[in-house]
Amino acid sequence: MRFHSRKWVKPGDLNANKTLFGGKVLAWVDEEAALYTIIQLENKKVVTKYMSEINFMSSAKEGDIVEIGIEVIKFGVSSLTLNCEVRNKMTRETILTVDNIIMVNLDENGKPKPHGKTKIEYVRDRLAK
Amino acid sequence: MRFHSRKWVKPGDLNANKTLFGGKVLAWVDEEAALYTIIQLENKKVVTKYMSEINFMSSAKEGDIVEIGIEVIKFGVSSLTLNCEVRNKMTRETILTVDNIIMVNLDENGKPKPHGKTKIEYVRDRLAK
Amino acid sequence: MRFHSRKWVKPGDLNANKTLFGGKVLAWVDEEAALYTIIQLENKKVVTKYMSEINFMSSAKEGDIVEIGIEVIKFGVSSLTLNCEVRNKMTRETILTVDNIIMVNLDENGKPKPHGKTKIEYVRDRLAK
Amino acid sequence: MRFHSRKWVKPGDLNANKTLFGGKVLAWVDEEAALYTIIQLENKKVVTKYMSEINFMSSAKEGDIVEIGIEVIKFGVSSLTLNCEVRNKMTRETILTVDNIIMVNLDENGKPKPHGKTKIEYVRDRLAK
Amino acid sequence: MRFHSRKWVKPGDLNANKTLFGGKVLAWVDEEAALYTIIQLENKKVVTKYMSEINFMSSAKEGDIVEIGIEVIKFGVSSLTLNCEVRNKMTRETILTVDNIIMVNLDENGKPKPHGKTKIEYVRDRLAK
Amino acid sequence: MRFHSRKWVKPGDLNANKTLFGGKVLAWVDEEAALYTIIQLENKKVVTKYMSEINFMSSAKEGDIVEIGIEVIKFGVSSLTLNCEVRNKMTRETILTVDNIIMVNLDENGKPKPHGKTKIEYVRDRLAK
Repeated sequence: MRFHSRKWVKPGDLNANKTLFGGKVLAWVDEEAALYTIIQLENKKVVTKYMSEINFMSSAKEGDIVEIGIEVIKFGVSSLTLNCEVRNKMTRETILTVDNIIMVNLDENGKPKPHGKTKIEYVRDRLAK
Repeated sequence: MRFHSRKWVKPGDLNANKTLFGGKVLAWVDEEAALYTIIQLENKKVVTKYMSEINFMSSAKEGDIVEIGIEVIKFGVSSLTLNCEVRNKMTRETILTVDNIIMVNLDENGKPKPHGKTKIEYVRDRLAK
Repeated sequence: MRFHSRKWVKPGDLNANKTLFGGKVLAWVDEEAALYTIIQLENKKVVTKYMSEINFMSSAKEGDIVEIGIEVIKFGVSSLTLNCEVRNKMTRETILTVDNIIMVNLDENGKPKPHGKTKIEYVRDRLAK
Repeated sequence: MRFHSRKWVKPGDLNANKTLFGGKVLAWVDEEAALYTIIQLENKKVVTKYMSEINFMSSAKEGDIVEIGIEVIKFGVSSLTLNCEVRNKMTRETILTVDNIIMVNLDENGKPKPHGKTKIEYVRDRLAK
Repeated sequence: MRFHSRKWVKPGDLNANKTLFGGKVLAWVDEEAALYTIIQLENKKVVTKYMSEINFMSSAKEGDIVEIGIEVIKFGVSSLTLNCEVRNKMTRETILTVDNIIMVNLDENGKPKPHGKTKIEYVRDRLAK
Repeated sequence: MRFHSRKWVKPGDLNANKTLFGGKVLAWVDEEAALYTIIQLENKKVVTKYMSEINFMSSAKEGDIVEIGIEVIKFGVSSLTLNCEVRNKMTRETILTVDNIIMVNLDENGKPKPHGKTKIEYVRDRLAK
């Protein structure tokens, strides 16, 4: 799994217990899944369709750095299934995992559309063509 | 199920497809679950421990009104299990459901603590005592 | 008066005195009034025209839960007059009250338009028709 | 009246009608009143106690510039009464006015405290002493 | 240099060290430069093209008031060069300075367009014409 | 240069011209520089001291994905000098570059403190020790 985006836990990200607000982490996960999918499918119109169960294993405090990792589980016809882990950058303690996030590729009218992809592509390879 | 909090979908809540950003809805769900638990358990120190799978059934557009419903599934010793539905207020179309959200009651040191509650209480009854 | 939306006072909602920022409460009141009006008038194009005087009777601290209640005072031809109270959910202490909030129903060009409503309607009744 | 703070109306400031969200303007007014009071009373612990009625005379669109003017109406023993106008910088059209905003000076325990001021002071004069 | 916009440093503006987040100050500077340019050039379509080096001389704490000053350095054919200082309102301590911020005037298609201005104008003079 | 954090340009990130708000990009750059420094210096108390000139070479539109790259230029005694590039993930077009960002390592009292680092370290190597 590759970890890309990192977040610095600031006062506005905390809940009333002074730990990282769970809803904020979920928003970060959803955004990262969308970003990853847009890059892989080369289509900006993608939506989150499903998330499997989420275990909140640990939290984070103000000033901690959190990083979000994504990897592909499966290329469907018009979907992409991802696996996600959020962890503390310094200690590598896992904050939460989501085994399956299903993202769907949409056409102009917002209907599912085959994306024609079957494996991970890197931007450097596309540019080299 | 009782529906309380309502949200007005504004430009800042949209994703790049101009539909309600999934991460925003998840943040709303997590906040509503925390609110409900704090009121029931009469303790401000509660955390989200687990969410069962999430199906995104429909979305919402700018200007739509979304409402969030919560009901109790089970009172554990130091936990509370909730069921949640998010829907469009005008059409009653369901946006997403989460069957089980497990919230945990914490003590001063952030450790699970028995809450002593076994059924739903309403503030009016507590005040009447 | 019915209380719907609830807010969890988080660090980002505080002023520099560590109490709930008054401007935030006013933003919540305005949003709730708009939501209520949109649902009653079945029209998304509504604006706030007037608010009567506002007394800030108490405040709230981080971690408190605030709820916002709205009731209809009068149905005008193209307006709706509301009464609003914001209170602390646990103690029922009133944070502020606004006796009259006048909301106006607009047409496509942003001009006042008669709404044809004379009494409160519930979505369940509309759907049952 | 002197106009200081200016705001650039951005997408995140709009309501679902694509005009400036009324709640946002009220939050700006409350912040500006607090700022002005802190500077005049040389005390960071001040709160908004009262706002007289608010007429929303016009709105603003995305990209418009809004400026907020404040002037002192009265120095009380532990309070300061302000008058506020919000207007469009380019056209000078008034967005809203609030005739009386009463701000209260607080001591360390959050109780009203005499501020000892009787007239407007400018920072340059204080520094010159 | 004239100082207009003032900001009240709130919890959501802090970094994890509890001082004003540098990125927030830069966002405020960029917004103020854009505002100033829009008013001077009487055109809403302006963009930031360049900022000279930035020295962070001091910071600010929660509850401090920060003010942002702008002055014109040069009127180019389709650009405007500004000088900016951010300081603490009460102590007048400088937080940062940016010697040159180049703003560009754009046409409908986003291309640089001559603005025809050669000196600072005040709205009161334009209205008096 | 390694590119980590990615951002999805959403409506709330736009300026009134519907392009990515320059102030937002600067806030992202400052946060990424702080994150990188905290990880390298293993100290949460770091501040931005200086940024060299910034050229805004291109912008981004809603729905674009932006990524932020950082590399170390120099390890000082109590500082770290970074180089930063922000670019569009799909096209690899550069949005802006900042040649030198000087971050300072602070002690408990907010004074510069030697950090004892002379080269880039990876978390995996630290954990392996």
